[in-house]
Amino acid sequence: MARIAVIGAGAVGGYYGGRLALAGHDVRFLVRSDYAAWKARGLRVFSKDGDFTLPDVQAFRDPAELGTADWVICALKATAIDEAADLIAPCAGPETRIAALMNGLGNEQRLAERFPARRIFGAMAFVCINRGEPGVIHHLEYGRVSVGHLEDDPAETALLAELFRGAGIETVIAPNLRYARWEKLCWNVPFNGLSVAGGGIGTRTILEDRELRAFAEGAMREVVRAGNADLAAAGSEARLDEEDVVRRMFAQTEAMADYRTSMVIDLVLGRPLEAEAILGNPVRRARELAVQVPRMEALYALVRHADLARRGERRLLTPEDLRLPESVV
Amino acid sequence: MARIAVIGAGAVGGYYGGRLALAGHDVRFLVRSDYAAWKARGLRVFSKDGDFTLPDVQAFRDPAELGTADWVICALKATAIDEAADLIAPCAGPETRIAALMNGLGNEQRLAERFPARRIFGAMAFVCINRGEPGVIHHLEYGRVSVGHLEDDPAETALLAELFRGAGIETVIAPNLRYARWEKLCWNVPFNGLSVAGGGIGTRTILEDRELRAFAEGAMREVVRAGNADLAAAGSEARLDEEDVVRRMFAQTEAMADYRTSMVIDLVLGRPLEAEAILGNPVRRARELAVQVPRMEALYALVRHADLARRGERRLLTPEDLRLPESVV
Repeated sequence: MARIAVIGAGAVGGYYGGRLALAGHDVRFLVRSDYAAWKARGLRVFSKDGDFTLPDVQAFRDPAELGTADWVICALKATAIDEAADLIAPCAGPETRIAALMNGLGNEQRLAERFPARRIFGAMAFVCINRGEPGVIHHLEYGRVSVGHLEDDPAETALLAELFRGAGIETVIAPNLRYARWEKLCWNVPFNGLSVAGGGIGTRTILEDRELRAFAEGAMREVVRAGNADLAAAGSEARLDEEDVVRRMFAQTEAMADYRTSMVIDLVLGRPLEAEAILGNPVRRARELAVQVPRMEALYALVRHADLARRGERRLLTPEDLRLPESVV
Repeated sequence: MARIAVIGAGAVGGYYGGRLALAGHDVRFLVRSDYAAWKARGLRVFSKDGDFTLPDVQAFRDPAELGTADWVICALKATAIDEAADLIAPCAGPETRIAALMNGLGNEQRLAERFPARRIFGAMAFVCINRGEPGVIHHLEYGRVSVGHLEDDPAETALLAELFRGAGIETVIAPNLRYARWEKLCWNVPFNGLSVAGGGIGTRTILEDRELRAFAEGAMREVVRAGNADLAAAGSEARLDEEDVVRRMFAQTEAMADYRTSMVIDLVLGRPLEAEAILGNPVRRARELAVQVPRMEALYALVRHADLARRGERRLLTPEDLRLPESVV
């Protein structure tokens, strides 16, 4: 059994960390906002694959209390990437492996500025999961994790896959980490992007509006092309199959209820948006590779703007703004 | 002096109709919502080119009361195009000329379903103008009108130019009507579109945000290309000069204060958006001509969505929607 530090105990960290703990691992969670609830009532997971409770969950408020781990699962929001290394460092010894279970492009590269690349992994969760009240997680649909290693060492990747599979988590080994990241972006860019650019909408509104749906599909095709250009530039022979990706991802989304993306939940609750990880970094990579991605750029511009508005750095017009001053004549 | 019927006495109809009345024409206005104020206090225009008041303005509530006119200036919102012909018909005799002083593409063609094409004109106002309290109009900047004739007869176009010029209105005769319509769209598509897609923003927010500005410029270039393809398809030799359009329109917009487009004002006040005239019709024309316009399509999808949301045909998510049901366990 491994000693595992879960950094960031939101819905994703809580759910997957909970599954690992249920499988008998020594899992220690860094829990900040909901610490009191976790200590008082443990971690409760309502899952379509079976509910479970961890009454004596190991929750800590300071990463120094977690101790050195065999594995660090970093499940922070990508908006916290700047502080991730500082939170991970107290748990990281020379042998510690670190998996970024985060959205977007560039997280592993950022961690590699502080930790050795051969110890860094990426994991992508294809899951519908939401936080309920403090200490409660609702796992609604799916649950598969796709894993890769920053240096694409198959033996290393297998270790992470084994860890997840041993806890009953469906795990896919991606052809390589870059492939896996872009594949996940194929869904996140159009659906997270449009859910926010549309002012707060679920997936059904996108699927059922002919213009929004065409926009989503066009954006998904751009992600495939940018991803394939990035794979080619990196010397990989793996390629995303454009028609297969579009068919598969739309079919999966059709099969869901009116799903609210993590980004639209952040928007509605006034939390930071993962605009740079999900949209900005892929757009910048596409620009470097001279791939035309006008729909991705449109989504990036609008989501970035929504995040700036949320932070109060710009104001949206209200009826008050339209009252012209009374003339003095 | 001509007898002129102004159908639709909003900011544009009131301002230009007012200038024509001030020049001595027999101008009769169809005034619906603000009728009482117009009768009580006349029409008051605060203009950067000189304020004026028409205390005895001829305002009517029913188009049948206006009588047959030499000219009909149709200054309705483009969202009212379906009812335009019915409102114009009582004022239209066999010799009546009809000018659509409206935004967007396709208005003249719609009017030509009911009136002879040789009697139909288009006019585009490049003006910053807002309604104040009922019966009051604020003319803030610019004021130029570009005119064309549906059959592009130069002698006919000259008549409309003469009418406006005689009232002190700066008037440009476009190479042809199609050219003039697309030229105006070069500004309206990016700026009206983004002002709404951005959730309610003025022109300065677009100009000062690097991503929104790049999106606006990209969309403007798409409008130029679609317009030029449309001109070529119609056998016209006139072309919009892409670099000149971009340079000129951004320079003009830089020179303005934080201008609120007519479409963002409609959004904020909950009024119908001119989504089809300004975005939908140009997008459909570009698609017919197989011109790639992903940014125009993005704006159309989002503005159309905003209009459907305004009409209550879809709902934007609120924090209430994100409260999961308490578990019964």
